[in-house]
Amino acid sequence: MMNRRELVQSLVEIVGKKAVLHAPEDLLVFETDASIGAALPWVAVFPSSVEEVSRIVRLAYKEGIPIVARGTGTGISGGAIASEGGILLTLTRMKRILEVDPLNQTAVVESGVVNLDLSKAVSKYGLYYVPDPSSQKVCTIGGNVGTNAGGPHCLAYGVTTNHVLGLEVVLDDGDIVWLGGKTGERPGYDLTGVVVGSEGTLAIVTKIIVRLTHKPEAVKTFLAIFDRMDDASNTVSQIIASGIVPAALEMIDNLVIQAVEQAIHAGFPLDAEAVLLIELDGLRESVEEEAEVVKAICGENRTREIRVAEEEDERERLWAARKGALGALGRLAPNYYILDGVVPPTQLPQVLQKVGELSQRFGFAIANVFHAGDGNLHPNILFDARVPGQSEKVLELGEEVMRICVEAGGAITGEHGIGLEKRSFMEWVFTPDDLEAMGKLKRAFNERDLLNPAKIFPTGKACDGSSVSIRPELMPKGSDEPPVHFPSGSNLGPEDYI
Amino acid sequence: MMNRRELVQSLVEIVGKKAVLHAPEDLLVFETDASIGAALPWVAVFPSSVEEVSRIVRLAYKEGIPIVARGTGTGISGGAIASEGGILLTLTRMKRILEVDPLNQTAVVESGVVNLDLSKAVSKYGLYYVPDPSSQKVCTIGGNVGTNAGGPHCLAYGVTTNHVLGLEVVLDDGDIVWLGGKTGERPGYDLTGVVVGSEGTLAIVTKIIVRLTHKPEAVKTFLAIFDRMDDASNTVSQIIASGIVPAALEMIDNLVIQAVEQAIHAGFPLDAEAVLLIELDGLRESVEEEAEVVKAICGENRTREIRVAEEEDERERLWAARKGALGALGRLAPNYYILDGVVPPTQLPQVLQKVGELSQRFGFAIANVFHAGDGNLHPNILFDARVPGQSEKVLELGEEVMRICVEAGGAITGEHGIGLEKRSFMEWVFTPDDLEAMGKLKRAFNERDLLNPAKIFPTGKACDGSSVSIRPELMPKGSDEPPVHFPSGSNLGPEDYI
Repeated sequence: MMNRRELVQSLVEIVGKKAVLHAPEDLLVFETDASIGAALPWVAVFPSSVEEVSRIVRLAYKEGIPIVARGTGTGISGGAIASEGGILLTLTRMKRILEVDPLNQTAVVESGVVNLDLSKAVSKYGLYYVPDPSSQKVCTIGGNVGTNAGGPHCLAYGVTTNHVLGLEVVLDDGDIVWLGGKTGERPGYDLTGVVVGSEGTLAIVTKIIVRLTHKPEAVKTFLAIFDRMDDASNTVSQIIASGIVPAALEMIDNLVIQAVEQAIHAGFPLDAEAVLLIELDGLRESVEEEAEVVKAICGENRTREIRVAEEEDERERLWAARKGALGALGRLAPNYYILDGVVPPTQLPQVLQKVGELSQRFGFAIANVFHAGDGNLHPNILFDARVPGQSEKVLELGEEVMRICVEAGGAITGEHGIGLEKRSFMEWVFTPDDLEAMGKLKRAFNERDLLNPAKIFPTGKACDGSSVSIRPELMPKGSDEPPVHFPSGSNLGPEDYI
Repeated sequence: MMNRRELVQSLVEIVGKKAVLHAPEDLLVFETDASIGAALPWVAVFPSSVEEVSRIVRLAYKEGIPIVARGTGTGISGGAIASEGGILLTLTRMKRILEVDPLNQTAVVESGVVNLDLSKAVSKYGLYYVPDPSSQKVCTIGGNVGTNAGGPHCLAYGVTTNHVLGLEVVLDDGDIVWLGGKTGERPGYDLTGVVVGSEGTLAIVTKIIVRLTHKPEAVKTFLAIFDRMDDASNTVSQIIASGIVPAALEMIDNLVIQAVEQAIHAGFPLDAEAVLLIELDGLRESVEEEAEVVKAICGENRTREIRVAEEEDERERLWAARKGALGALGRLAPNYYILDGVVPPTQLPQVLQKVGELSQRFGFAIANVFHAGDGNLHPNILFDARVPGQSEKVLELGEEVMRICVEAGGAITGEHGIGLEKRSFMEWVFTPDDLEAMGKLKRAFNERDLLNPAKIFPTGKACDGSSVSIRPELMPKGSDEPPVHFPSGSNLGPEDYI
C-alpha cells in the first residue's frame, strides 16, 4: 500500500490541489456525521465528475485503501464515518441538476444535489421530489439514496427507493455502470433497488434518475390535541385502518411539547400528553371528505381540540414546530440521543407504553417525536454527558428500545440506515443464513471490502486503522478526547437530523 | 451425475410417488408455457412444503441438475421452460393462504396461491391484492413475483414489487432464508426487491408476504371512442400529464375492436380507430372531479362518444371485452404472437405510428390492446403458421418492434420478463459492463447456474441437454415436430395470458 504522502499526491493528480484535504486540522470536521461515533479519515477528496470518482475508486482498489462516500454528513448511524481510515469521498461538489423532463416526470441529478434544491428547481412545473427528510435543506439526494431515507411525507408516497428509477454508479474497481433507467420497470435484476439503502457498501452513486410528483391541488393540515397518549396512538391506528392514507401523520409527546413551547411558542397546550400533526392532500373535494373522517376518528378518541391550518402560513407554522422539535430538546437537557426504529402501526400504543417503562427504569426522560403513521419511532433519550457513566447507560437504554421494536415485529431502522451504530443489532432480526445471503451480495460487488468497510454487518472486519470513539461531546468531562466538532463545517444544527 | 431413474427414485423419496411425473406422455403438458418455445424436462415434481422444496434443491445442487421453478405456466417469454432439461419444480400444490392481518394490511401466502384467490379471500375485510394480470384467474402469485408481473390496475398502484414486503426463499444449496418482513422498509440490502423479477434465477420463492390495499369507495369506468388513433394516444399523454393517475388506462385498436365485436358483441363501433378504457377510483367526490377532467381532455381530442359505466355490471361488461380481446383475435387469423415492450408515455403516438409502418412493410396485421397509461405496449402480430416461412418472419418483425421501443427510450419487457425469448435483446439496452454487474449478482446466488439456467442473460451457457424448439403449432405443416400441447393441463385459453 502506498504511504499517506503518496496517496495525497496521487489524489491531487486526479482532482487538483484544492479538492484534497489532508491536514489534521482540516480533517477534524470530517471525523463524524450526526451520530455518536467519530474517526479521522486519512484524506478527504472532493471530485467534480464521475470520471474523477472512477479514477479515485480505481486507485483505492489498486492500493487496497478503504473508501467512504459521503454527502453532507447528516446521517445519524455513523454510516459516513471513515471508521477504518482511508479516503473520505465527499460528493458535495457534484451538485448539478442535469435534466428535468416535466412531461415524463423525471429528473437526472448528480448525487451531491441538496434534497430541497431539486424540489425548488422543478416547482415551476408544478412538480416536486417527494422524500422529505427533516434535514432536506442540507442533506444530499446521494445520501438519501445511501440510507433509503424517509421523511414525514413518505407515509402516503413511499421512501426514497420508490422515487428512484435509475442510478449511475462506480463499482469497486472503478467501472462506471448505469442501473435502471427512465422507464420504471426494467428487464433484468433490480440492481437499482439493491443499491438504494446499501450505504455505499456496494457501489458509489454518482447520478440519480428520480421520479417527480405533481403537487397536490389541495393540502389541509390538522393539529389534534390529546389529554392521553393512548388516545393519540389509537387515533393513529384507526386512521390507518380506515383506509385513508394521510400525506403525513406525526406524533409529538408532552416532553417535546414542553421544549417546543419554550423555543417556538407554537401554542401547544403544555398539559396535553400528545399532539398529532395530520396532513391530507389531493384533490380539493377528496381532502374535504377525508377531513371529516379524520375529525370523527379524533373525536371518538377524546381529542380535546382540533386546529385546522387551511392557509399556507398557518401550515408552515405547524411544520416549523414539528421540524424544530429536536433542536428545541436542547432546552430540556444538555444532550440527547436519537433512536430510529419501526413497529407495525397497530403496535404503537403497547410499544410507547414499554418505552415509557424503560424510561422510568433507567431514570432518563425519553421524548418522542416521530412518523406515527408508518410506525417509525424516534425516541430521544435526554441526558447529561457531564455526569460520569450516563453516556454508557444511554447506549444501553437505546439498545433496549431497539429490542422492544424488534419484539413487536418491527425493525431496527426506519430511514437512517445501520451504519456503525446498529451493526450488532442486525443479529436480532436476521438469522446467520439471512446475513450470509446479504454477505453473498456484498462480496459480489465489494469483494475486497474497501467500499465503506465495517458498515451494516456485525461480521464486518474489525477495525485495523483508525478506530471509532464515542463522539467527544458525549464523553464525560475530563476525558482526553478532542473537543466537539459539528459535521461538514456547514451550519447544521441538531434540528436538521431527523 | 445420477441417472434419470435414480433421480426419479430420489425425488419419490422426498415427495412421494404421486408428486413425481416422469413418463414422456405425462411430461408433454409441461414442455411449454404461453410462449413460443418448448422443451421437455427430465422430471416434474410437485412439492407440498418448503422443507420438500429445500430437499429437492439440495439434491439438484449436489448432483448438478438444472432446476426450473414454475407456477401455472402462463408466462409469455419462456421463463418456465426447462430449456436445459433437469427438474421442473411445479409449486401449484403450495397454495395455502397462511395468514391475513387486516389491520396491518398484510397477508402471508404460499407461492402457488392463484392471484385472484387471494383477493377473494380478503374481500370480506374490504381489502384486495392490487396486481391483476389478465391471467389472474389462473396465474400464481409466485409466478407474478418471478416476472414482477403487472396488470391493468398497476398504473396507479405499481407492479408486483410494490406489493411484496417479504419472501421465504430456498437458495441454490437448499438453505431456507427469509428476506424482508412485515414492516415495509427493512435494514440491510433489499434482497426482496432483487429476487422479485429474477425469474427463478437467484432463488426459489416459497412464501410471500404481500401488502393488501383497501378497496376504493368509488369506481367509475369510461369507454372513450376515437375516430383517429392519434387522438386516442394524445388523450393518454394528456391525462398522464394532467397529474391524474387513473386506476387503469387501456387502449384497444380497430383490429381488436373488430375481433371483440365478432366474439363478444360489446357494442364497440366498428369504424373507430381506437377506444380507451379509462377507470378512476378513490373517494366518491374525487372520482367525480377527476371524471370531469378526463371528459374534458377526451373532448379536446375529438372523442366521438364517451360511455360511462357507473354500475358494477356495466363495468364488468367493459372489462370482459378488454380481457377477452386476445382470445377474440383467433377470429382474425389462425395464429398471433404477443409482444411486450415499454415506452415513455409521451412517445406513444410516434411508436404506434412506427409499429403501423412495420406492419405494412412486413405484410402482417398487428393488433394493439395494451396498458397505455404506463406505456406498456402489447402488439399482437396476426399470421398463419401453415404458410411456410411466416413464423420466422414474425419473429423478425417482433424483434423490429422491440428495437423501436428501445430506440424510443423504452425497455424490452413491461411485465412478462425476459425468459428465453428476449435474452438476445438484453444487449440492446445494457452495456457489457451493465450485464456484468447483473452477472456478479447471479453468480453470487446461483454460482453453478442450476437455478433456471440459460434464462435472462444473452451470455447464459449454451443448451447442453434438451434443446428449445419453436412451439409446434407455430411450425409449418409437414414439420416432424410433435403436436400442439397447451401448458399445465389446465383449461387455459390464450385470453388468460396478458
